[in-house]
Amino acid sequence: MKPEILLSRIRIVLCRPSHPGNIGAAARAMKTMGLSRLSLVNPKQFPDAEADARATGAVDLLQQAEIHATLQDALADTIFVIGLSARQRDLGPEIGEPRPMVARLLAAAAEGEVALVFGNETVGLSNDELQQCHAAVSIPTNPDFSSLNLGSAVQVLSYELRMAAFLESPPVSDTVVTPFVSPSATHNEVEGFYAHLEAVMTAAGFYNPAQPGRLMPKLRRLFGRIRLERDEVNILRGILAATQQPTGHGTRNS
Amino acid sequence: MKPEILLSRIRIVLCRPSHPGNIGAAARAMKTMGLSRLSLVNPKQFPDAEADARATGAVDLLQQAEIHATLQDALADTIFVIGLSARQRDLGPEIGEPRPMVARLLAAAAEGEVALVFGNETVGLSNDELQQCHAAVSIPTNPDFSSLNLGSAVQVLSYELRMAAFLESPPVSDTVVTPFVSPSATHNEVEGFYAHLEAVMTAAGFYNPAQPGRLMPKLRRLFGRIRLERDEVNILRGILAATQQPTGHGTRNS
Repeated sequence: MKPEILLSRIRIVLCRPSHPGNIGAAARAMKTMGLSRLSLVNPKQFPDAEADARATGAVDLLQQAEIHATLQDALADTIFVIGLSARQRDLGPEIGEPRPMVARLLAAAAEGEVALVFGNETVGLSNDELQQCHAAVSIPTNPDFSSLNLGSAVQVLSYELRMAAFLESPPVSDTVVTPFVSPSATHNEVEGFYAHLEAVMTAAGFYNPAQPGRLMPKLRRLFGRIRLERDEVNILRGILAATQQPTGHGTRNS
Repeated sequence: MKPEILLSRIRIVLCRPSHPGNIGAAARAMKTMGLSRLSLVNPKQFPDAEADARATGAVDLLQQAEIHATLQDALADTIFVIGLSARQRDLGPEIGEPRPMVARLLAAAAEGEVALVFGNETVGLSNDELQQCHAAVSIPTNPDFSSLNLGSAVQVLSYELRMAAFLESPPVSDTVVTPFVSPSATHNEVEGFYAHLEAVMTAAGFYNPAQPGRLMPKLRRLFGRIRLERDEVNILRGILAATQQPTGHGTRNS
């Protein structure tokens, strides 16, 4: 797919930006790198003369910018979303450096609409916002002064997107180490989950072991794409167990 | 040699900057990436309140900035110099992309003082100035809009310098291509699954929306790692729907 088309499928989403100047700087940064689609979630002040001034020749991106009330609206038709975050959050998505993450975003753009999401200048993305992202990207900075300007963050990642999109042989990722918060489940634990799932589906009439078809392979492929953690297997089996109780009395609420 | 020491040997030189705001933005960009030495050649207006405002926490770099009347003075003790240029000049030094040029600058920094030189916002480096450089670097941009802001150019190259200085071993890549058999689910489709899952868990007594705890974030983190396909969302929702039917009559067996 042509690099220009890949870049045209990437929207830059700014969540709750406080300073209109940064919106303009982001638009200019995007346009210099061949990105064109800007979405704003609940901007404090927009449109604004300061935004236009900082955008210089990229005012067209501001005029075409979409404005949404929530991040969910801004992401409605996307298939893959990466959010900027300075650090790994407790229950947030996997975080990685710009190059592997940009490679993932471009790979997804070959299939559909994708987004790169930036938080508010002061507080960044909220945990709720970051949980709407499939992955997170962190720009390496000086640990003693990590105060990257919002427009500069957009510039750096837009630049990385252009570099990767126009690279003849794209760097296929990932050297990202997933920060597991719980130990990985063992093979046996995962098999126990599949057996439990199969029993529940059978009892519910959704699955007939005598005519298995491709249902279990599809589910194995689904869960097999991630390395389930032990805690996650326990949650999934807890849900399954709760649906098996006719009285509807579950046991867990973590 | 330690990356911090390499970076401490790199000076950023701004030739005849017109806008003090850009000087401040350059200082902030440098400091976020661990660079500390700013030299100004014949700035139009400096010191200046606008420079301080845009520098935010990097005012120390402005206070320590060296001011010179000519580029030659600013480069006096350097052993290697790269200048920013949008194009190959007739008699100018060899021009290259950021990554190979940044690698050369760092290699030279292991031996002594080096400089990265930026021209005036409107006209760039003069031919005379560029001829004082050993090499030139061009930041790839959109051919229809190559108007990179001066602060942004400093940001991009400072970022590349940090990335290269701290890279212990070059990025290892493994070519994992996920064989997608169905289109990716959209953001809205995945949200629909979460809502359905939440309803089933609530009915089963496994989840209490009044005391949500960390259950939904954990489940979002789990499924967020997968990048669900549309077909998979349909399967998962089919299972959920089947468990909701008290008689246990499901609808699907694929």
